[in-house]
Amino acid sequence: MRIVDLINKKKRGENLSASEIDYIVQGYTMGEIPDYQMSAFLMAVYFKGMSKEEIANLTLSMVNSGETVDLSMIEGIKVDKHSSGGVGDKISLVIVPLCACVGIPVAKMSGRGLGHTGGTIDKLESIEGFRTELSKDEFVNNVNKYKMAIVGQSPNLTPADKKIYALRDVTGTVDSIPLIASSIMSKKIASGCDCIVLDVKVGSGAFMKSVDEAVILAKTMVEIGKSLGRKTVAVVTDMNQPLGHEVGNANEVKEAIGILKGRGAEDETTVALTIASYMAVLGGAFSDYESAYKKMRELIESGEAVEKLKEFIRIQGGNPEVVDNPDLLPKAEKHIEIKSSVSGYVNSINAEDIGVSAMLLGAGRKTKNDSIDFSAGVTMVKKVGDWVDEGDTLCILHTNKTDINDAKELSKSAFVIKDKKPEPVKFIHCVID
Amino acid sequence: MRIVDLINKKKRGENLSASEIDYIVQGYTMGEIPDYQMSAFLMAVYFKGMSKEEIANLTLSMVNSGETVDLSMIEGIKVDKHSSGGVGDKISLVIVPLCACVGIPVAKMSGRGLGHTGGTIDKLESIEGFRTELSKDEFVNNVNKYKMAIVGQSPNLTPADKKIYALRDVTGTVDSIPLIASSIMSKKIASGCDCIVLDVKVGSGAFMKSVDEAVILAKTMVEIGKSLGRKTVAVVTDMNQPLGHEVGNANEVKEAIGILKGRGAEDETTVALTIASYMAVLGGAFSDYESAYKKMRELIESGEAVEKLKEFIRIQGGNPEVVDNPDLLPKAEKHIEIKSSVSGYVNSINAEDIGVSAMLLGAGRKTKNDSIDFSAGVTMVKKVGDWVDEGDTLCILHTNKTDINDAKELSKSAFVIKDKKPEPVKFIHCVID
Repeated sequence: MRIVDLINKKKRGENLSASEIDYIVQGYTMGEIPDYQMSAFLMAVYFKGMSKEEIANLTLSMVNSGETVDLSMIEGIKVDKHSSGGVGDKISLVIVPLCACVGIPVAKMSGRGLGHTGGTIDKLESIEGFRTELSKDEFVNNVNKYKMAIVGQSPNLTPADKKIYALRDVTGTVDSIPLIASSIMSKKIASGCDCIVLDVKVGSGAFMKSVDEAVILAKTMVEIGKSLGRKTVAVVTDMNQPLGHEVGNANEVKEAIGILKGRGAEDETTVALTIASYMAVLGGAFSDYESAYKKMRELIESGEAVEKLKEFIRIQGGNPEVVDNPDLLPKAEKHIEIKSSVSGYVNSINAEDIGVSAMLLGAGRKTKNDSIDFSAGVTMVKKVGDWVDEGDTLCILHTNKTDINDAKELSKSAFVIKDKKPEPVKFIHCVID
Repeated sequence: MRIVDLINKKKRGENLSASEIDYIVQGYTMGEIPDYQMSAFLMAVYFKGMSKEEIANLTLSMVNSGETVDLSMIEGIKVDKHSSGGVGDKISLVIVPLCACVGIPVAKMSGRGLGHTGGTIDKLESIEGFRTELSKDEFVNNVNKYKMAIVGQSPNLTPADKKIYALRDVTGTVDSIPLIASSIMSKKIASGCDCIVLDVKVGSGAFMKSVDEAVILAKTMVEIGKSLGRKTVAVVTDMNQPLGHEVGNANEVKEAIGILKGRGAEDETTVALTIASYMAVLGGAFSDYESAYKKMRELIESGEAVEKLKEFIRIQGGNPEVVDNPDLLPKAEKHIEIKSSVSGYVNSINAEDIGVSAMLLGAGRKTKNDSIDFSAGVTMVKKVGDWVDEGDTLCILHTNKTDINDAKELSKSAFVIKDKKPEPVKFIHCVID
């Protein structure tokens, strides 16, 4: 097999066999195929696409390029969830206690934030004492006993994906559905779960800008899951504004506690309960989605869910007091109100710009090795559909930094305000299963 | 400017500006843009193409990436010719004396052979004493005094093209018209000529397999020439069999002498006179093609042309006696006749296979540093349209090697023999100006 022949084959739009795809993926991971041939191949994939079989084989080859997590010591059907990257997305903090309450084991590996998107691991570490590094035994025991654990992603999973992703980033080959779908699914499958619920974001703050595109990505990922024996459901959710009111770390934990206390914003509550319900159905706790959703609501109303969160924080070493007294979470020194210079309805809020603003305030990382300030972030005072008078506060910036002019400008310009009232926001666009 | 943005721009099918293209070409030549970004860019060009302006700008940037030859010290309009690579193509040896006879200065830089195609420099060096390295003064003086000189290509011309070509070869991005056209034209323009006649080959032995493709390539190159102020004509000629009867080095020189004596095969004579005529018209010696062609015929019939070849060989240090006595040229020890195992009409002869056979016999190079045997080669006894009886000789292999089974098999299988008589061969498919 010669890589140049395989590049030409894909260039002509022909399908590659499983062994041809594996030759490319393993050859590239081992350094036998150089970057310049891989990038030409990836560009050919961008233009010619891949068949369902090719995408499943690509995913499997990436899974096989590194370690895979063995969760067989955990009892029950292990359900994982993945979000395609949002701003203000604290859903994972909400679904873990909800699923644990109904007996679904959630053995979750999460990532850190980079650029405009946050990461669950960073958010959890804003809780004093919370440990995101557990030994394998502790991880397994916690899930068996309490049905919940979240740890940082192992650095040894899917090395092919890491290397390919880094190359795509600098060669204009990021926006290819087969490559995006296989990248996400390979990480999930290597993490050892049995079932997957995908939260595919669509809108200004998401990679997929249109619902049509998001549906194609969602369908592609569901097909990969099915091909590789994982029950998979994808929920296409709105990201034409940040989710909820808080963007950052400690402030998102605070908001997640609020959701579990029944005081969450409508958008994030709907998304969290929808995803938790699909996880509960896939995990076998309910036979239908409606019963699951009803139960999730009850768990919030009864206070059971928020008690479970307290337990979750406690067993991973964090201070559970934050649940009753969120003021114990880190707080920034400065709080700057961004005011509107016009009147009108908020038509959209560019979520990516708000994410970048939060990063500039200290809440995120420009590059992998930056440290972050858990107390920094942005509070969205106004959301899409709200009326704003000139001089009203649109959002509040929380920071310990002094030079924040860029964040001020960017967060203000993120708000698109018009005379016309926008259509009501649809939180869930559709579900693919 | 960031290369990843330019890759994305081309990927979306947008046109790049002159400065954007120059940024890519010079950046890549200087090593500031890595191979992996360049190969992704080239694949995007393969899929999205380039506008006329982009192709002209790409050509100019490649010309400017290295030295350019200054021919201003040579009087008159300098006309060059280029062949897109053929098998048995000894046309350059014929057109130089023809053009010189009518006062057109030909200051030619030629290449060496590689793979299945031969090179004019190698062919000339099969003549005892012939020097293909002349000082700049000698080159200029010869052209001013005798109207003719051929030297090896300067290694410092178009370094961008060399580097890009090497990358295209291993990344599946060779077969892109904008890239092929700009590669050829950049070398010709850097060589300093005023006008260019292109011989674009089409058929089994050429890169362009169909006339339609060849016409697109021809038109693209003519447009580049015009955009950059060089009068350019392209002649699309047939390569569904090797040109003439001889493929090799010394045997091709012998055949070229024959053409100039009026004893050439019809295909190669027609192609040589056509190209020489267009060169003479572009150079201003004739106002119309028909008069030029008539004159070329006369030069051959009168013996003037072959005398001019003798002079050409003499002034570059070669033994002019070979013209009157071609047996002075190197001869191989072994001559193996390849016989037909069927009867029928020769429908086609795969020129590339014959070229590879000649290479295997010693006449060509597998890699740049191989040495060659001037006496080796293949004589085509039968040509397309000829009737063959079982047992008739199809071709004769000339070699000093012992293990030539591959060449035997390949040269035999190159002949496609069928019951049906093929359509008559069209030597010249069309002319683009």
